Amino acid sequence: MEHPSRKAGRKPSKALDAAILSAALEALAEVGFEPLSIADVARRAGTTPPAIYRRFSNKPKLLLAALADDLAKIRDPATDCGSLRADLLDWIGIIVRELSPSRMRILGSLVFQARRDPEPIALLTETAHRLGARHWDMIITRAVRRGDLPSRALPAVFRRLPAALVTYQAMFPRPPEDAEAIAELVDAVMLPAILAAARPGARTERSGVLP
Amino acid sequence: MEHPSRKAGRKPSKALDAAILSAALEALAEVGFEPLSIADVARRAGTTPPAIYRRFSNKPKLLLAALADDLAKIRDPATDCGSLRADLLDWIGIIVRELSPSRMRILGSLVFQARRDPEPIALLTETAHRLGARHWDMIITRAVRRGDLPSRALPAVFRRLPAALVTYQAMFPRPPEDAEAIAELVDAVMLPAILAAARPGARTERSGVLP
Repeated sequence: MEHPSRKAGRKPSKALDAAILSAALEALAEVGFEPLSIADVARRAGTTPPAIYRRFSNKPKLLLAALADDLAKIRDPATDCGSLRADLLDWIGIIVRELSPSRMRILGSLVFQARRDPEPIALLTETAHRLGARHWDMIITRAVRRGDLPSRALPAVFRRLPAALVTYQAMFPRPPEDAEAIAELVDAVMLPAILAAARPGARTERSGVLP
Repeated sequence: MEHPSRKAGRKPSKALDAAILSAALEALAEVGFEPLSIADVARRAGTTPPAIYRRFSNKPKLLLAALADDLAKIRDPATDCGSLRADLLDWIGIIVRELSPSRMRILGSLVFQARRDPEPIALLTETAHRLGARHWDMIITRAVRRGDLPSRALPAVFRRLPAALVTYQAMFPRPPEDAEAIAELVDAVMLPAILAAARPGARTERSGVLP
Protein backbone atom coordinates (compact mmCIF):
# COMPACT_ATOMS: atom_id res chain seq x y z
CA MET A 1 0.00 0.00 0.00
CA GLU A 2 1.55 3.31 -1.07
CA HIS A 3 0.93 6.27 1.15
CA PRO A 4 0.84 9.80 -0.25
CA SER A 5 3.77 11.97 0.75
CA ARG A 6 2.86 14.37 3.51
CA LYS A 7 2.20 17.95 2.52
CA ALA A 8 0.90 20.95 4.39
CA GLY A 9 -2.87 20.66 4.95
CA ARG A 10 -2.97 16.90 4.52
CA LYS A 11 -3.81 14.69 7.44
CA PRO A 12 -0.88 12.60 8.59
CA SER A 13 -1.03 9.26 6.84
CA LYS A 14 -1.89 7.11 9.88
CA ALA A 15 -4.69 9.44 10.91
CA LEU A 16 -6.02 9.50 7.37
CA ASP A 17 -5.93 5.67 7.20
CA ALA A 18 -8.04 5.53 10.35
CA ALA A 19 -10.40 8.27 9.13
CA ILE A 20 -11.00 6.41 5.85
CA LEU A 21 -11.73 3.08 7.55
CA SER A 22 -14.03 4.72 10.06
CA ALA A 23 -15.85 6.67 7.32
CA ALA A 24 -16.26 3.50 5.24
CA LEU A 25 -17.79 1.68 8.21
CA GLU A 26 -20.14 4.57 8.93
CA ALA A 27 -21.23 4.70 5.28
CA LEU A 28 -21.73 0.93 5.24
CA ALA A 29 -24.10 1.16 8.22
CA GLU A 30 -25.96 4.13 6.74
CA VAL A 31 -26.25 3.52 3.01
CA GLY A 32 -25.45 -0.21 2.73
CA PHE A 33 -22.92 -2.20 0.76
CA GLU A 34 -24.22 -1.82 -2.76
CA PRO A 35 -25.20 1.89 -2.90
CA LEU A 36 -22.03 2.96 -1.09
CA SER A 37 -19.65 5.09 -3.19
CA ILE A 38 -15.98 5.88 -2.73
CA ALA A 39 -16.86 9.56 -3.25
CA ASP A 40 -19.22 9.39 -0.25
CA VAL A 41 -16.53 7.76 1.91
CA ALA A 42 -14.00 10.38 0.81
CA ARG A 43 -16.38 13.19 1.76
CA ARG A 44 -17.07 11.65 5.19
CA ALA A 45 -13.32 11.19 5.79
CA GLY A 46 -12.45 14.72 4.67
CA THR A 47 -10.30 13.47 1.82
CA THR A 48 -10.50 12.71 -1.92
CA PRO A 49 -11.30 9.57 -3.92
CA PRO A 50 -7.72 9.36 -5.28
CA ALA A 51 -6.38 9.28 -1.71
CA ILE A 52 -8.65 6.29 -1.06
CA TYR A 53 -7.75 4.54 -4.33
CA ARG A 54 -4.06 4.87 -3.47
CA ARG A 55 -4.81 2.67 -0.44
CA PHE A 56 -7.57 0.35 -1.72
CA SER A 57 -7.88 -0.61 -5.36
CA ASN A 58 -11.66 -0.98 -5.20
CA LYS A 59 -14.76 -0.65 -2.99
CA PRO A 60 -14.91 -4.30 -1.80
CA LYS A 61 -11.25 -4.13 -0.65
CA LEU A 62 -11.95 -0.90 1.24
CA LEU A 63 -15.04 -2.35 2.92
CA LEU A 64 -13.29 -5.60 3.85
CA ALA A 65 -10.49 -3.58 5.47
CA ALA A 66 -13.04 -1.44 7.33
CA LEU A 67 -14.87 -4.54 8.56
CA ALA A 68 -11.64 -6.26 9.64
CA ASP A 69 -10.58 -3.10 11.49
CA ASP A 70 -13.94 -2.95 13.28
CA LEU A 71 -14.03 -6.66 14.15
CA ALA A 72 -10.54 -6.41 15.64
CA LYS A 73 -12.01 -4.08 18.29
CA ILE A 74 -14.34 -6.75 19.74
CA ARG A 75 -13.27 -7.38 23.32
CA ASP A 76 -12.56 -10.73 24.93
CA PRO A 77 -14.56 -11.64 28.04
CA ALA A 78 -13.23 -10.33 31.33
CA THR A 79 -10.89 -12.25 33.54
CA ASP A 80 -12.38 -14.89 35.81
CA CYS A 81 -15.74 -13.76 37.23
CA GLY A 82 -15.67 -16.42 39.96
CA SER A 83 -18.07 -19.07 38.67
CA LEU A 84 -19.17 -20.68 35.41
CA ARG A 85 -22.53 -18.92 35.71
CA ALA A 86 -20.95 -15.49 36.23
CA ASP A 87 -18.51 -16.08 33.35
CA LEU A 88 -21.37 -17.04 31.00
CA LEU A 89 -23.42 -13.97 31.96
CA ASP A 90 -20.38 -11.73 31.51
CA TRP A 91 -19.69 -13.22 28.06
CA ILE A 92 -23.31 -12.83 26.91
CA GLY A 93 -23.32 -9.24 28.20
CA ILE A 94 -20.30 -8.53 25.98
CA ILE A 95 -22.06 -10.02 22.94
CA VAL A 96 -25.12 -7.85 23.66
CA ARG A 97 -22.99 -4.71 23.87
CA GLU A 98 -20.82 -5.52 20.83
CA LEU A 99 -23.87 -6.23 18.64
CA SER A 100 -24.71 -2.53 18.34
CA PRO A 101 -27.55 -1.23 16.13
CA SER A 102 -24.96 0.01 13.67
CA ARG A 103 -23.29 -3.43 13.46
CA MET A 104 -26.74 -5.05 13.04
CA ARG A 105 -27.45 -2.75 10.08
CA ILE A 106 -24.12 -3.71 8.53
CA LEU A 107 -24.88 -7.40 9.12
CA GLY A 108 -28.27 -6.98 7.42
CA SER A 109 -26.71 -5.27 4.43
CA LEU A 110 -24.03 -7.97 4.08
CA VAL A 111 -26.54 -10.83 4.41
CA PHE A 112 -28.61 -9.20 1.70
CA GLN A 113 -25.78 -8.78 -0.78
CA ALA A 114 -23.86 -12.01 -0.02
CA ARG A 115 -24.95 -13.61 -3.29
CA ARG A 116 -23.16 -10.91 -5.30
CA ASP A 117 -20.04 -10.64 -3.13
CA PRO A 118 -19.65 -13.37 -0.50
CA GLU A 119 -16.32 -12.13 0.90
CA PRO A 120 -17.59 -9.66 3.53
CA ILE A 121 -20.05 -12.11 5.08
CA ALA A 122 -17.36 -14.82 4.91
CA LEU A 123 -15.13 -12.53 6.99
CA LEU A 124 -17.93 -12.07 9.55
CA THR A 125 -18.57 -15.83 9.57
CA GLU A 126 -14.94 -16.64 10.18
CA THR A 127 -14.78 -14.02 12.96
CA ALA A 128 -18.02 -15.17 14.62
CA HIS A 129 -16.87 -18.79 14.74
CA ARG A 130 -13.31 -17.96 15.78
CA LEU A 131 -14.35 -15.60 18.60
CA GLY A 132 -17.10 -18.00 19.73
CA ALA A 133 -14.60 -20.85 19.96
CA ARG A 134 -11.96 -18.73 21.73
CA HIS A 135 -14.33 -17.22 24.30
CA TRP A 136 -15.97 -20.57 24.99
CA ASP A 137 -12.57 -22.17 25.46
CA MET A 138 -11.49 -19.45 27.91
CA ILE A 139 -14.65 -19.93 29.98
CA ILE A 140 -14.60 -23.72 29.97
CA THR A 141 -10.88 -23.93 30.74
CA ARG A 142 -11.49 -21.72 33.78
CA ALA A 143 -14.48 -23.83 34.86
CA VAL A 144 -12.38 -27.00 34.74
CA ARG A 145 -9.52 -25.33 36.64
CA ARG A 146 -12.01 -24.09 39.24
CA GLY A 147 -13.54 -27.55 39.60
CA ASP A 148 -16.98 -26.52 38.24
CA LEU A 149 -16.61 -29.03 35.40
CA PRO A 150 -14.74 -32.34 35.24
CA SER A 151 -13.62 -31.98 31.61
CA ARG A 152 -13.40 -29.60 28.65
CA ALA A 153 -14.99 -32.12 26.25
CA LEU A 154 -18.45 -30.68 25.49
CA PRO A 155 -20.65 -30.53 22.38
CA ALA A 156 -19.65 -27.66 20.08
CA VAL A 157 -23.20 -26.30 19.83
CA PHE A 158 -22.97 -24.76 23.32
CA ARG A 159 -20.57 -22.08 22.19
CA ARG A 160 -22.89 -20.93 19.38
CA LEU A 161 -25.99 -20.47 21.53
CA PRO A 162 -25.20 -17.11 23.16
CA ALA A 163 -24.38 -15.33 19.88
CA ALA A 164 -27.29 -17.09 18.13
CA LEU A 165 -29.84 -15.99 20.73
CA VAL A 166 -28.49 -12.45 21.02
CA THR A 167 -28.43 -11.99 17.22
CA TYR A 168 -31.97 -13.40 16.96
CA GLN A 169 -33.17 -11.00 19.63
CA ALA A 170 -31.47 -8.07 17.93
CA MET A 171 -33.36 -8.94 14.72
CA PHE A 172 -36.69 -9.76 16.39
CA PRO A 173 -36.71 -7.63 19.53
CA ARG A 174 -39.18 -7.98 22.42
CA PRO A 175 -37.42 -5.90 25.04
CA PRO A 176 -38.63 -7.12 28.45
CA GLU A 177 -38.82 -10.79 27.43
CA ASP A 178 -35.42 -10.61 25.76
CA ALA A 179 -33.64 -9.78 29.00
CA GLU A 180 -35.39 -12.67 30.72
CA ALA A 181 -34.51 -15.00 27.84
CA ILE A 182 -30.81 -14.27 28.34
CA ALA A 183 -30.94 -15.13 32.03
CA GLU A 184 -32.92 -18.28 31.16
CA LEU A 185 -30.38 -19.22 28.49
CA VAL A 186 -27.79 -19.45 31.26
CA ASP A 187 -29.87 -20.82 34.15
CA ALA A 188 -32.43 -23.05 32.43
CA VAL A 189 -30.53 -24.10 29.31
CA MET A 190 -26.77 -23.84 29.35
CA LEU A 191 -25.93 -24.74 32.96
CA PRO A 192 -28.23 -27.80 33.14
CA ALA A 193 -27.17 -28.97 29.68
CA ILE A 194 -23.46 -28.40 30.32
CA LEU A 195 -23.64 -30.26 33.61
CA ALA A 196 -25.56 -33.12 31.97
CA ALA A 197 -23.02 -33.30 29.12
CA ALA A 198 -20.10 -33.19 31.56
CA ARG A 199 -21.32 -36.19 33.56
CA PRO A 200 -19.07 -39.22 32.98
CA GLY A 201 -20.52 -41.32 30.15
CA ALA A 202 -22.90 -38.57 29.00
CA ARG A 203 -21.68 -38.57 25.39
CA THR A 204 -22.76 -42.17 24.78
CA GLU A 205 -25.92 -42.11 26.87
CA ARG A 206 -29.23 -40.98 25.37
CA SER A 207 -32.17 -39.21 26.92
CA GLY A 208 -35.25 -41.14 27.98
CA VAL A 209 -37.49 -39.61 25.32
CA LEU A 210 -36.21 -41.43 22.26
CA PRO A 211 -36.18 -42.27 19.46
CA MET B 1 -59.43 -2.12 -2.19
CA GLU B 2 -60.92 -1.37 -5.65
CA HIS B 3 -60.18 -3.84 -8.37
CA PRO B 4 -60.06 -2.78 -12.00
CA SER B 5 -62.95 -3.98 -14.10
CA ARG B 6 -62.07 -6.99 -16.21
CA LYS B 7 -61.36 -6.35 -19.83
CA ALA B 8 -60.07 -8.54 -22.62
CA GLY B 9 -56.31 -9.09 -22.24
CA ARG B 10 -56.23 -8.29 -18.55
CA LYS B 11 -55.40 -10.97 -16.02
CA PRO B 12 -58.39 -11.87 -13.86
CA SER B 13 -58.25 -9.80 -10.70
CA LYS B 14 -57.41 -12.60 -8.24
CA ALA B 15 -54.61 -13.90 -10.45
CA LEU B 16 -53.24 -10.37 -10.83
CA ASP B 17 -53.38 -9.82 -7.07
CA ALA B 18 -51.29 -12.96 -6.60
CA ALA B 19 -48.89 -12.03 -9.41
CA ILE B 20 -48.28 -8.58 -7.90
CA LEU B 21 -47.58 -9.94 -4.41
CA SER B 22 -45.28 -12.61 -5.78
CA ALA B 23 -43.43 -10.10 -7.99
CA ALA B 24 -43.03 -7.73 -5.04
CA LEU B 25 -41.52 -10.50 -2.92
CA GLU B 26 -39.16 -11.53 -5.70
CA ALA B 27 -38.06 -7.91 -6.20
CA LEU B 28 -37.58 -7.48 -2.45
CA ALA B 29 -35.23 -10.49 -2.38
CA GLU B 30 -33.35 -9.33 -5.46
CA VAL B 31 -33.03 -5.56 -5.23
CA GLY B 32 -33.85 -4.90 -1.56
CA PHE B 33 -36.39 -2.72 0.22
CA GLU B 34 -35.03 0.74 -0.50
CA PRO B 35 -34.05 0.50 -4.20
CA LEU B 36 -37.23 -1.39 -5.11
CA SER B 37 -39.57 0.50 -7.45
CA ILE B 38 -43.26 -0.02 -8.20
CA ALA B 39 -42.35 0.13 -11.92
CA ASP B 40 -40.00 -2.85 -11.45
CA VAL B 41 -42.71 -4.83 -9.60
CA ALA B 42 -45.24 -4.00 -12.35
CA ARG B 43 -42.82 -5.24 -15.03
CA ARG B 44 -42.18 -8.48 -13.15
CA ALA B 45 -45.93 -9.02 -12.65
CA GLY B 46 -46.77 -8.25 -16.29
CA THR B 47 -48.91 -5.26 -15.33
CA THR B 48 -48.70 -1.49 -14.97
CA PRO B 49 -47.89 0.81 -12.03
CA PRO B 50 -51.47 2.21 -11.98
CA ALA B 51 -52.85 -1.32 -11.54
CA ILE B 52 -50.60 -1.69 -8.49
CA TYR B 53 -51.48 1.76 -7.09
CA ARG B 54 -55.19 0.88 -7.36
CA ARG B 55 -54.47 -1.91 -4.87
CA PHE B 56 -51.72 -0.42 -2.68
CA SER B 57 -51.38 3.30 -2.07
CA ASN B 58 -47.59 3.15 -1.65
CA LYS B 59 -44.53 0.91 -1.74
CA PRO B 60 -44.40 0.09 2.01
CA LYS B 61 -48.05 -1.06 1.92
CA LEU B 62 -47.35 -3.27 -1.10
CA LEU B 63 -44.28 -4.81 0.54
CA LEU B 64 -46.05 -5.40 3.85
CA ALA B 65 -48.84 -7.21 1.99
CA ALA B 66 -46.30 -9.29 0.05
CA LEU B 67 -44.50 -10.21 3.28
CA ALA B 68 -47.73 -11.10 5.08
CA ASP B 69 -48.79 -13.24 2.11
CA ASP B 70 -45.45 -15.06 2.17
CA LEU B 71 -45.39 -15.54 5.95
CA ALA B 72 -48.89 -17.04 5.83
CA LYS B 73 -47.42 -19.91 3.78
CA ILE B 74 -45.12 -21.10 6.59
CA ARG B 75 -46.23 -24.58 7.59
CA ASP B 76 -46.97 -25.86 11.06
CA PRO B 77 -44.98 -28.87 12.27
CA ALA B 78 -46.33 -32.28 11.28
CA THR B 79 -48.70 -34.26 13.41
CA ASP B 80 -47.23 -36.27 16.25
CA CYS B 81 -43.89 -37.82 15.29
CA GLY B 82 -44.00 -40.27 18.20
CA SER B 83 -41.59 -38.72 20.72
CA LEU B 84 -40.48 -35.35 22.02
CA ARG B 85 -37.12 -35.85 20.32
CA ALA B 86 -38.68 -36.68 16.94
CA ASP B 87 -41.10 -33.74 17.23
CA LEU B 88 -38.23 -31.33 17.98
CA LEU B 89 -36.17 -32.59 15.04
CA ASP B 90 -39.19 -32.35 12.73
CA TRP B 91 -39.86 -28.77 13.88
CA ILE B 92 -36.24 -27.69 13.40
CA GLY B 93 -36.22 -29.31 9.96
CA ILE B 94 -39.21 -27.17 9.01
CA ILE B 95 -37.44 -24.00 10.20
CA VAL B 96 -34.36 -24.95 8.14
CA ARG B 97 -36.47 -25.47 5.01
CA GLU B 98 -38.63 -22.35 5.50
CA LEU B 99 -35.58 -20.11 6.02
CA SER B 100 -34.71 -20.21 2.31
CA PRO B 101 -31.83 -18.15 0.82
CA SER B 102 -34.41 -15.80 -0.67
CA ARG B 103 -36.09 -15.24 2.71
CA MET B 104 -32.66 -14.68 4.30
CA ARG B 105 -31.91 -11.97 1.72
CA ILE B 106 -35.24 -10.32 2.51
CA LEU B 107 -34.50 -10.54 6.24
CA GLY B 108 -31.10 -8.90 5.66
CA SER B 109 -32.64 -6.09 3.67
CA LEU B 110 -35.32 -5.45 6.30
CA VAL B 111 -32.83 -5.51 9.19
CA PHE B 112 -30.73 -2.98 7.30
CA GLN B 113 -33.54 -0.54 6.62
CA ALA B 114 -35.49 -0.98 9.89
CA ARG B 115 -34.40 2.43 11.19
CA ARG B 116 -36.15 4.18 8.30
CA ASP B 117 -39.30 2.01 8.21
CA PRO B 118 -39.73 -0.32 11.19
CA GLU B 119 -43.05 -1.84 10.08
CA PRO B 120 -41.76 -4.71 7.90
CA ILE B 121 -39.33 -6.01 10.51
CA ALA B 122 -42.05 -5.56 13.16
CA LEU B 123 -44.28 -7.85 11.08
CA LEU B 124 -41.48 -10.45 10.89
CA THR B 125 -40.87 -10.10 14.63
CA GLU B 126 -44.52 -10.62 15.47
CA THR B 127 -44.67 -13.63 13.14
CA ALA B 128 -41.46 -15.18 14.47
CA HIS B 129 -42.63 -14.94 18.08
CA ARG B 130 -46.20 -16.04 17.33
CA LEU B 131 -45.16 -19.08 15.28
CA GLY B 132 -42.43 -19.98 17.79
CA ALA B 133 -44.95 -19.92 20.64
CA ARG B 134 -47.57 -21.88 18.69
CA HIS B 135 -45.23 -24.59 17.46
CA TRP B 136 -43.61 -24.96 20.86
CA ASP B 137 -47.02 -25.24 22.49
CA MET B 138 -48.09 -27.96 20.02
CA ILE B 139 -44.95 -29.97 20.72
CA ILE B 140 -45.03 -29.60 24.49
CA THR B 141 -48.76 -30.32 24.75
CA ARG B 142 -48.17 -33.57 22.87
CA ALA B 143 -45.19 -34.45 25.07
CA VAL B 144 -47.30 -34.01 28.21
CA ARG B 145 -50.16 -36.05 26.73
CA ARG B 146 -47.69 -38.76 25.74
CA GLY B 147 -46.18 -38.80 29.23
CA ASP B 148 -42.72 -37.57 28.08
CA LEU B 149 -43.10 -34.50 30.32
CA PRO B 150 -44.97 -33.99 33.58
CA SER B 151 -46.07 -30.40 32.87
CA ARG B 152 -46.24 -27.69 30.20
CA ALA B 153 -44.66 -25.06 32.46
CA LEU B 154 -41.20 -24.46 30.99
CA PRO B 155 -38.96 -21.39 30.53
CA ALA B 156 -39.93 -19.38 27.46
CA VAL B 157 -36.39 -19.30 26.09
CA PHE B 158 -36.61 -22.92 24.90
CA ARG B 159 -38.99 -22.04 22.12
CA ARG B 160 -36.65 -19.39 20.71
CA LEU B 161 -33.57 -21.57 20.49
CA PRO B 162 -34.34 -23.53 17.29
CA ALA B 163 -35.12 -20.44 15.20
CA ALA B 164 -32.22 -18.55 16.78
CA LEU B 165 -29.67 -21.25 15.97
CA VAL B 166 -31.01 -21.88 12.47
CA THR B 167 -31.04 -18.16 11.64
CA TYR B 168 -27.51 -17.77 13.02
CA GLN B 169 -26.31 -20.68 10.92
CA ALA B 170 -27.99 -19.26 7.83
CA MET B 171 -26.08 -16.00 8.37
CA PHE B 172 -22.76 -17.59 9.37
CA PRO B 173 -22.74 -20.93 7.58
CA ARG B 174 -20.30 -23.79 8.23
CA PRO B 175 -22.08 -26.59 6.42
CA PRO B 176 -20.88 -29.87 7.97
CA GLU B 177 -20.72 -28.50 11.53
CA ASP B 178 -24.11 -26.82 11.15
CA ALA B 179 -25.91 -30.13 10.63
CA GLU B 180 -24.18 -31.55 13.69
CA ALA B 181 -25.06 -28.46 15.72
CA ILE B 182 -28.75 -29.00 15.02
CA ALA B 183 -28.65 -32.60 16.24
CA GLU B 184 -26.69 -31.43 19.29
CA LEU B 185 -29.21 -28.66 19.95
CA VAL B 186 -31.83 -31.37 20.44
CA ASP B 187 -29.78 -34.12 22.10
CA ALA B 188 -27.21 -32.21 24.16
CA VAL B 189 -29.10 -28.99 24.89
CA MET B 190 -32.87 -29.04 24.62
CA LEU B 191 -33.73 -32.53 25.86
CA PRO B 192 -31.45 -32.43 28.93
CA ALA B 193 -32.49 -28.85 29.75
CA ILE B 194 -36.21 -29.52 29.22
CA LEU B 195 -36.06 -32.62 31.39
CA ALA B 196 -34.16 -30.72 34.09
CA ALA B 197 -36.67 -27.84 33.97
CA ALA B 198 -39.62 -30.26 34.09
CA ARG B 199 -38.44 -31.96 37.27
CA PRO B 200 -40.70 -31.05 40.21
CA GLY B 201 -39.24 -28.06 42.04
CA ALA B 202 -36.82 -27.22 39.21
CA ARG B 203 -37.98 -23.61 38.86
CA THR B 204 -36.89 -22.65 42.37
CA GLU B 205 -33.76 -24.78 42.53
CA ARG B 206 -30.45 -23.44 41.30
CA SER B 207 -27.49 -25.20 39.78
CA GLY B 208 -24.43 -26.03 41.83
CA VAL B 209 -22.17 -23.57 40.03
CA LEU B 210 -23.44 -20.34 41.54
CA PRO B 211 -23.52 -17.45 41.88
